[in-house]
Amino acid sequence: MSEQETVAVPAEEQKIEDVQNGTAEEKEVKENGSGDAEPVAEVEKEAPKEMRAVVLTGFGGLKSVKILKKPEPAVNEGEVLIRVKACGLNFQDLMVRQGAIDSPPKCPFILGFECAGEIEQLGEGVEDFAIGDQVVALPEYRAWSELVAVPAKYVYKLPKNVSHLDAVTITMNYTVAHILLFEMAGLTKGKSILVHSVGGGVGQAIVQLAKTVPDVTIFGVCSKGKHDALRAAGSPVDHLLERGGDYVGEVRKLSPEGVDVVLDCLCGEECNKGYNLLKPMGKYVLYGSSNVVTGETKSFFSAARSWWQVDKVSPLKLFDENRTLCGFNLRHLMYQQHGEGYVKQTVQSVFKLFQEGKIKPLLDSTWALEDVVEAMQKMHDRKNVGKIILDPSMEPKPKPATPAKGKNKEDKKKQSSEEKKEPEEKKDDEKKEEKKEENLTNGDSPGESDSKKDNSS
Amino acid sequence: MSEQETVAVPAEEQKIEDVQNGTAEEKEVKENGSGDAEPVAEVEKEAPKEMRAVVLTGFGGLKSVKILKKPEPAVNEGEVLIRVKACGLNFQDLMVRQGAIDSPPKCPFILGFECAGEIEQLGEGVEDFAIGDQVVALPEYRAWSELVAVPAKYVYKLPKNVSHLDAVTITMNYTVAHILLFEMAGLTKGKSILVHSVGGGVGQAIVQLAKTVPDVTIFGVCSKGKHDALRAAGSPVDHLLERGGDYVGEVRKLSPEGVDVVLDCLCGEECNKGYNLLKPMGKYVLYGSSNVVTGETKSFFSAARSWWQVDKVSPLKLFDENRTLCGFNLRHLMYQQHGEGYVKQTVQSVFKLFQEGKIKPLLDSTWALEDVVEAMQKMHDRKNVGKIILDPSMEPKPKPATPAKGKNKEDKKKQSSEEKKEPEEKKDDEKKEEKKEENLTNGDSPGESDSKKDNSS
Repeated sequence: MSEQETVAVPAEEQKIEDVQNGTAEEKEVKENGSGDAEPVAEVEKEAPKEMRAVVLTGFGGLKSVKILKKPEPAVNEGEVLIRVKACGLNFQDLMVRQGAIDSPPKCPFILGFECAGEIEQLGEGVEDFAIGDQVVALPEYRAWSELVAVPAKYVYKLPKNVSHLDAVTITMNYTVAHILLFEMAGLTKGKSILVHSVGGGVGQAIVQLAKTVPDVTIFGVCSKGKHDALRAAGSPVDHLLERGGDYVGEVRKLSPEGVDVVLDCLCGEECNKGYNLLKPMGKYVLYGSSNVVTGETKSFFSAARSWWQVDKVSPLKLFDENRTLCGFNLRHLMYQQHGEGYVKQTVQSVFKLFQEGKIKPLLDSTWALEDVVEAMQKMHDRKNVGKIILDPSMEPKPKPATPAKGKNKEDKKKQSSEEKKEPEEKKDDEKKEEKKEENLTNGDSPGESDSKKDNSS
Repeated sequence: MSEQETVAVPAEEQKIEDVQNGTAEEKEVKENGSGDAEPVAEVEKEAPKEMRAVVLTGFGGLKSVKILKKPEPAVNEGEVLIRVKACGLNFQDLMVRQGAIDSPPKCPFILGFECAGEIEQLGEGVEDFAIGDQVVALPEYRAWSELVAVPAKYVYKLPKNVSHLDAVTITMNYTVAHILLFEMAGLTKGKSILVHSVGGGVGQAIVQLAKTVPDVTIFGVCSKGKHDALRAAGSPVDHLLERGGDYVGEVRKLSPEGVDVVLDCLCGEECNKGYNLLKPMGKYVLYGSSNVVTGETKSFFSAARSWWQVDKVSPLKLFDENRTLCGFNLRHLMYQQHGEGYVKQTVQSVFKLFQEGKIKPLLDSTWALEDVVEAMQKMHDRKNVGKIILDPSMEPKPKPATPAKGKNKEDKKKQSSEEKKEPEEKKDDEKKEEKKEENLTNGDSPGESDSKKDNSS
């Protein structure tokens, strides 16, 4: 763990470092509350201006996710400084928290890959933006903060009728879904698709984008618990199937020949089942950059393990069977493979569809930065239907005097997977559980009743 | 070898069986010459009507390819009987001759997957065709014959201005190329493609179809010997590269980031080179249904071996690298996987492009059925630029009194690959070589000088 790391810092910054290293955290989290980056008296003397940010202090459980004061970022050449108004929570953030991604940064660092806001400052050489522009950005980390400096190539101007909230509901999920469906799977009229984790943010984006093509049939797999919520939200999945059930048999009953496309963010044991459901000329698309959702009974680590155990495929098998295997990883494409130009084009296509009313993003709930742990827990438990958003200007939830015990019982049962599968995490989880009880007002029943602002459209 | 097989047959058919088993072949080949299916007196008494056909009597060298009299086919339910006017020679036919395909039929059988002609008879239940219709067909074998009965689902009506010759020049190659480019590779404006065996029939079809999309850059790899012929034929390859040369280095020089699409009918050692040339979001397409051309220094068998040695690929590698791997096999799609409807649509798209003048198929040469061995040899030696066609109505070449020794020297050198690599085939090859010398009039220089009718457009 990098919590032991110390970095040489000027004396006036030492307090912040302490905070980052966990010694003063409780104080910071409790005293600072929400609101704009007000100076904190004891840290402030001659210190740089500060801002609130969601910091990961070490890889692991939710305990390591903290709201801290950090110095406002400097704007380097080619960057813009954004005053953040809304942040998107993506499954990738949960993977990062666990350290379950390749080449993670050193802790502590500010979490988050998606935010929208207003440009406050331009770095040298930035030409396509002006101060005051409303934008959405997909930076490599550091998005969950009051201010963030982002290379301009990862920033996209918002069309007039697209709000900050819309922007973080749409941008990451629909961009991924658009690439999966139209670049990878080549979706055309009359085809059928099988979507795993159809209740998640990318899953719902896939469903809506797929329905912009005539006569597409959608089989969607997710936990039974989400089916009613999806139906209530009017999600246009043609056949909702149950994860863990015999969904292969169900698909075969409805479409004996199988499906044209499988979109899989689970991989592991689902992989072979899905591959074998493909029709000739079928396409199997593996993705995971933004909504790699683990199975209900799996921990992140066991999901990561099964991910790495996927069987290799002979290209000759593909040749014999007339099948295609695709892999898509937005993070690699943008930050390692210079794909930002291509992504920008896709973001623009997505905004166009939104402006034309062809996609209606599903928002699950909006949370204060201070409630990020609860928001992440909700995504971990796969209780969200649609996007979870953080709003830096929002007041954190008041803490109830007594926990809502009755409702939390079932809740605990469902969350037990992580505890059971990750004994090394148990202590963290227990603490988190206690903390959660402190914070909850309405319990944490499935669906949206526990969100602070519900904006499902 | 199945030449030893005997089948219980009625007495009047015994002569035909003898012919098939090789005992009377010389007589048949020499006496019958070309022309329509005239009755042959000695076999004819009360025998069914006969037709000339290209028969494979056993898997192996060219010796086993014979022109024989066969009974005219009966028309079964769902079939149409076609009077064949032109046949397409595809690389697949060479693979079949060698037995280098999965589940080959029992010898003897009539070769050929592509023919055009006129419908003479309709089987029960056939509704979409009429007697007298001009059609092209892609039957599973039996196309190289004066008459063939083909399931109607593999038969496509010719538009008015498409001749039989056009039809067999276009249908197989352009249908494969169309599926590879637009279904598998999803070719769009501005992309770059690398085409292996660019001088072959499918290679040239790929090039012409790719050029119907704006701003596509084509890197084409083939043996140096074909470069001049391709340039002379006006083939729109942007960068002609040499097989065996450092084509990877050449591509990198011209396009440091690599290419968007690789179309590979060679596989084996080329596979890794090509895969590593892919840009992020790049697509690697393996095919081989109609023009799997072996390397210049490889025999069919060694090619088949390297084909089966291809490394397996982890789907996770595709995920990490944002790449796609596709396999396409027209034979499997049509005859095993019920893809005939999809193929029919594609054939129609191809005819439309031809009628609009957007594709100009390259014809290498046309041959009599009796000269099929020479035609196959030309394809084996990779000396054709564009399509090789068989015409059942054509007179066979006269045999020269003396062989053109000077020109054949170089020729022998180039052909030596098959002899060297396949000792078990040597005897056949030597015989074939002798036979060839007998038949040749103008030697067998690269390019088109040895074809009987040159129709390159």
